[in-house]
Amino acid sequence: MIIDVKKNILIVGMGLIGGSYAEALKRYGFRVTAITRSRKSIDYALEHGLIDDGAAEVRADLVGEADIVVFALYPHVFIEWIEKNQHLFKPGALLTDVTGVKGSVVYKVQDILRPDCEFIAAHPMAGREVYGVENATSRIFNGANYIVTPTPKNTPEAIETCRELGLLLGFAQVAELSPEEHDEMIGFVSQLTHCIAVSLMTCNDAENIEKFTGDSFRDLTRIARINDLMWSELFMANKKALLDQMDLFDRQFKKLRDMIAEGDVDGMREVMRYSSERRAKFDKKQ
Amino acid sequence: MIIDVKKNILIVGMGLIGGSYAEALKRYGFRVTAITRSRKSIDYALEHGLIDDGAAEVRADLVGEADIVVFALYPHVFIEWIEKNQHLFKPGALLTDVTGVKGSVVYKVQDILRPDCEFIAAHPMAGREVYGVENATSRIFNGANYIVTPTPKNTPEAIETCRELGLLLGFAQVAELSPEEHDEMIGFVSQLTHCIAVSLMTCNDAENIEKFTGDSFRDLTRIARINDLMWSELFMANKKALLDQMDLFDRQFKKLRDMIAEGDVDGMREVMRYSSERRAKFDKKQ
Repeated sequence: MIIDVKKNILIVGMGLIGGSYAEALKRYGFRVTAITRSRKSIDYALEHGLIDDGAAEVRADLVGEADIVVFALYPHVFIEWIEKNQHLFKPGALLTDVTGVKGSVVYKVQDILRPDCEFIAAHPMAGREVYGVENATSRIFNGANYIVTPTPKNTPEAIETCRELGLLLGFAQVAELSPEEHDEMIGFVSQLTHCIAVSLMTCNDAENIEKFTGDSFRDLTRIARINDLMWSELFMANKKALLDQMDLFDRQFKKLRDMIAEGDVDGMREVMRYSSERRAKFDKKQ
Repeated sequence: MIIDVKKNILIVGMGLIGGSYAEALKRYGFRVTAITRSRKSIDYALEHGLIDDGAAEVRADLVGEADIVVFALYPHVFIEWIEKNQHLFKPGALLTDVTGVKGSVVYKVQDILRPDCEFIAAHPMAGREVYGVENATSRIFNGANYIVTPTPKNTPEAIETCRELGLLLGFAQVAELSPEEHDEMIGFVSQLTHCIAVSLMTCNDAENIEKFTGDSFRDLTRIARINDLMWSELFMANKKALLDQMDLFDRQFKKLRDMIAEGDVDGMREVMRYSSERRAKFDKKQ
């Protein structure tokens, strides 16, 4: 293990993901602290043993003693936080994040960051439909993917530390992508899926549909219960890649619609067989 | 209970759904028999105690002794079966089905059926991504919806018997819709969702996406593993209603796309809030 369990880890942003990080890391014996805007979240995290210390404002000693700082904030809040408070970092501190978009965040943070600190970006691909530290649990990481998105500015040591963090958190797979590859992929597997779920959930106003629905509709709309503040920001921060993926989907959807309209059963069956074949690769490895 | 457990129930079509019906009904002491094309399926059902007797061809005695006949066949096979074999029914036999489309099936069967028998249509909204009697289990009915679709030709007794059958099978809710209401609803909650899942699964050929995917993509594509023969037939049998629902979805998807392209964050957030509110009604009652 590269990461010494005697290190201090500060988590900035004690919500669902920040809290789940804290819970996972405390088990190894790290000193885990937190800074978040809500006093209530800090109190909860302290009472439930998720953190050793914490504050509802930027406390210089908590920032200054941290060897690793994890940012679990909205993209624009994260960048503002760095601009405002980076003078407090311990020299040599390693910073990482959980942000769901990379291209519009990583380069900016690396550009403005003090040269004696390093930011290595990561995206833990896990979540729930509920929010807040009260719902935090490191179980959401089991079976999930953790993606490290290094740039040429990153050192091999920082990349390796970040990968190890993913393993310590309990992720099933740790992978590496460039920020651009990440954004294209996330535009497809995560943002497009949320756009589809929201559109499906809101396209038909019929009353009482819930009385007749089967599992298919429930599965396709699980993520239609969506944090509007966070996702609208994520969509905007990855606009081009997302629009490209939406167009890919829309073209394929129209192709299928035309086949149905024209009664092209052979065409439909071919698409369905290809679909079944591709889907088989996606079964979850637990 | 209206249905006498001493009655004989014949299931025509011993696949996933037929087998699951058999398993559920045997527990009450009914004599359950089956007719299906595959000898192997009959052998499996006999060996596993799902049925008391069965045949891989239309055996006159099995049909003639049945008080209730459940048809678990593809739509066109079902209609052909009635045309060819209805002379074998016991006078007064009650027929029901599990067909996923109604308008194009129910009236036709009622039109051609002998006047001394009655067909009351039903749609058990349950399924799995695997097929065949080997995967049958009545657990798939728990928490699911069972929909009876009567027409003016049906008697109150037949409707009541069919509703009771749904409860005996273990469905959480039994509801009633006209065939037309059913087809519109199923076009939306089931067929449209399958069209979306298939389009999402086949719109982007990128390799190795499965390494990076989270639960959202898996949930939205679970049903993308699809029986091409069955679903292409179901789509064709409900073409108009399905195309209407696809167009509703596509309009809403485009609206969201425009908001993203134009950076209309307020509009996006409003759609997302409406989506979250509507989705809350769909949580499964177990």
